[in-house]
Amino acid sequence: MSVGALTLTGLSGLPEVLPGGDLAALLAVSLATLSPATAAADVLVVAQKIVSKSEGRLVELASVVPGTRARELAATTGKDARLVELILAESTEVLRARPDVLIVRHRLGFVMANAGIDRSNVPAPAGHEKVLLLPVDPDASAERLRAALGARLGIAPGVIISDSFGRPWRRGVVNIALGACGIPALVNRRGETDRAGRALEVTEVALGDALAAAAGLLMGEAAEGIPAVLIRGLRTSAPANSARSLIRPLHEDLFR
Amino acid sequence: MSVGALTLTGLSGLPEVLPGGDLAALLAVSLATLSPATAAADVLVVAQKIVSKSEGRLVELASVVPGTRARELAATTGKDARLVELILAESTEVLRARPDVLIVRHRLGFVMANAGIDRSNVPAPAGHEKVLLLPVDPDASAERLRAALGARLGIAPGVIISDSFGRPWRRGVVNIALGACGIPALVNRRGETDRAGRALEVTEVALGDALAAAAGLLMGEAAEGIPAVLIRGLRTSAPANSARSLIRPLHEDLFR
Repeated sequence: MSVGALTLTGLSGLPEVLPGGDLAALLAVSLATLSPATAAADVLVVAQKIVSKSEGRLVELASVVPGTRARELAATTGKDARLVELILAESTEVLRARPDVLIVRHRLGFVMANAGIDRSNVPAPAGHEKVLLLPVDPDASAERLRAALGARLGIAPGVIISDSFGRPWRRGVVNIALGACGIPALVNRRGETDRAGRALEVTEVALGDALAAAAGLLMGEAAEGIPAVLIRGLRTSAPANSARSLIRPLHEDLFR
Repeated sequence: MSVGALTLTGLSGLPEVLPGGDLAALLAVSLATLSPATAAADVLVVAQKIVSKSEGRLVELASVVPGTRARELAATTGKDARLVELILAESTEVLRARPDVLIVRHRLGFVMANAGIDRSNVPAPAGHEKVLLLPVDPDASAERLRAALGARLGIAPGVIISDSFGRPWRRGVVNIALGACGIPALVNRRGETDRAGRALEVTEVALGDALAAAAGLLMGEAAEGIPAVLIRGLRTSAPANSARSLIRPLHEDLFR
């Protein structure tokens, strides 16, 4: 017997997203080609890169003047001092600096490499290399995108903005939810019991991160260019909350 | 335009798995009801609990005599000293012990709470409570299960054995791959370039963990009882490797 089915559909063929570009319009055109039509229970997972690009979060490296701390960390890590300057400006704390490694606490609370600043996938002429910062407020970006999709499509799917993250004890990256709107990013199962009537040992489920990881199976990182994935068939009655809910508060951090 | 589609189908209605039970036979019966038939490119994600049960990894708590170290850690964490004794026996190192928290390095290398030992979902009369340990070698379990499914179905899907894990800096659990066979659990993308021709910054993708997380969207933890999920439509040409590949080597651990 089979129950429960999820389908994931990658959206591709989106035009290059430009600073100030109307990302919702591009996504709505692509979503409108799907059959059946997008439903309110669907979840659209969008790659951080195209959200950041549409929000103009590009910085030309040549415009950055690194300070003393950035030059020191650049020497330690072997990274470009201008890039390190931007990483520090986006962070509240440096957790680890080693050759090729710079792990920080991003100003939004994410513990991540390089404050999420990407050098790849940003085309530019030599000497004008640009890098891409995370959105200023990914939950707010998700909320705006969801509202704009609702206005264009008549219905508003849940929206997740995702990015790939490393993990301290496991190799390889997986996608997580940087921002979310209209979905339960964190599900509280406290008080539920298992089939034997015992209280569940696991009381919080990172649904937003699992949705992002699933979408990552289609997104890839490179030439295939699938920057958004629609997930259908998710059944949950948990209340919606933001991706901010997924960030462990500092006072619970056992691994600083 | 849409490209790439994945479907996830939950298998339910499996009979209770008993120690020594033929898990492959139960799963093959369920898979045989699916249309179209299971293909070699499909991936079957199986919950650790039913694998451990079929392998008889149950221990009656009343049979455990806690040693000094277990009693000390039980006092620190508020956990049952017999459970802590089992956790220590399954671990090589205690990383953090706090009230309600015991994070260890499992003998297989996983950094996880309670060495993955579950108390829930194991029915037993009062005074005879049993707990469930991880499989002795989850990669080997996946390999045996895959071979047995191949013998029964004529084809062998990829197999992942998954369990839910906490994360140090994010709330909520997600599923990861404890064991794998016939899939590229870790994909090496070194040497690939993005659309702008730049080398990818992300060079290793934890495909096995992303597949497990996706399956977790249907599995849940409790009464719904979906212990296995078939994922179809994955396209990858990367070579297969084991879930052991996903464990970061100790000398790379920056967060002990």
